[in-house]
Amino acid sequence: MNYPKGIKLTKNKNISYGNRGMGLEKDLNETNVYYLAHKVANIHKKPTNITIASVDYPSRYEAVIKEAYFKTPSTTDYNGIYKGRYIDFEAKETNNKSSFPLNNLHTHQINHLKSIIEMGGIGFLIIRFKSLNETYLLDGETLINFIEQNNRKSISINFLREYGYIIKDKIRPRVDYLEIIDNLYFKGGNNNE
Amino acid sequence: MNYPKGIKLTKNKNISYGNRGMGLEKDLNETNVYYLAHKVANIHKKPTNITIASVDYPSRYEAVIKEAYFKTPSTTDYNGIYKGRYIDFEAKETNNKSSFPLNNLHTHQINHLKSIIEMGGIGFLIIRFKSLNETYLLDGETLINFIEQNNRKSISINFLREYGYIIKDKIRPRVDYLEIIDNLYFKGGNNNE
Repeated sequence: MNYPKGIKLTKNKNISYGNRGMGLEKDLNETNVYYLAHKVANIHKKPTNITIASVDYPSRYEAVIKEAYFKTPSTTDYNGIYKGRYIDFEAKETNNKSSFPLNNLHTHQINHLKSIIEMGGIGFLIIRFKSLNETYLLDGETLINFIEQNNRKSISINFLREYGYIIKDKIRPRVDYLEIIDNLYFKGGNNNE
Repeated sequence: MNYPKGIKLTKNKNISYGNRGMGLEKDLNETNVYYLAHKVANIHKKPTNITIASVDYPSRYEAVIKEAYFKTPSTTDYNGIYKGRYIDFEAKETNNKSSFPLNNLHTHQINHLKSIIEMGGIGFLIIRFKSLNETYLLDGETLINFIEQNNRKSISINFLREYGYIIKDKIRPRVDYLEIIDNLYFKGGNNNE
């Protein structure tokens, strides 16, 4: 399945790309704009990874992509810098109420997070349970240990409640995930490189 | 001009996207693959920034983008982590022989590099003079000072020869820019945070 989740499938029909469920993505983008404007952090979502097959030029200054394909991402979607440290994370939404299915993460995305952590970066996962309106941050090391030590197909919400951190809903910024990263990596001085 | 440079313009005709002059991009991607395989650094090129207008689904597991537009990039093209530090750079090729035209860089790309440096990251520019087969690295601070202190439309190759660093051609990795970053930021300890 070489295309993003959450797109309504309509067979043989052109559909609008604007209506897919991008609640978490939108909230994170707004949060990142807030962080940048307040000089807190410089973190961006990477553009959708595509292969362009054909481009049309109706005029000298206009270009329209007429054929392109979604590529499997080789990294996570978000990265940037916070307090001098490299930040890297993936964000996912699920309609499930009791667990997050791990087939939402590609193997190379998990390997990517592992590599980032080995190199001294801060890697994590943000999961939103849409129907519960609960958003969790799971630290990369906890995620990788869970995957390597358990042969599970999903992460239960109870595991996230115990070992993850709930991100409280705020007005500004919407999804203040750096508050949690602050507590995990920049308080007490031990983890602060 | 909301599309990448280096694409041959063909009016009202579908052209192949594979033949554009991607020499430096290809070399950098190979270099980054080498760095990752040897656990030196984890640096990637961001996908081309596009807005998708329409997607066609010929079958359940197939998706074809039928209409999309190039967006002006708000960041640089490359970022990642090296020796625990956040790395961020833009890479450009020019057919000119004596100078690099600054209209190749967007204002928000320069502002982005400035923000990255202020936050403790390492930002720079890689410029290749195709006809001379010479590739230079210009540190972000030098670049920003040049732009802010001079009212020039281009950077002369003489300036790059004096204040930049030539990246020597190698077999593996092809464009060893981290050798220069190593000398600039990780030797002597003064600049090493």
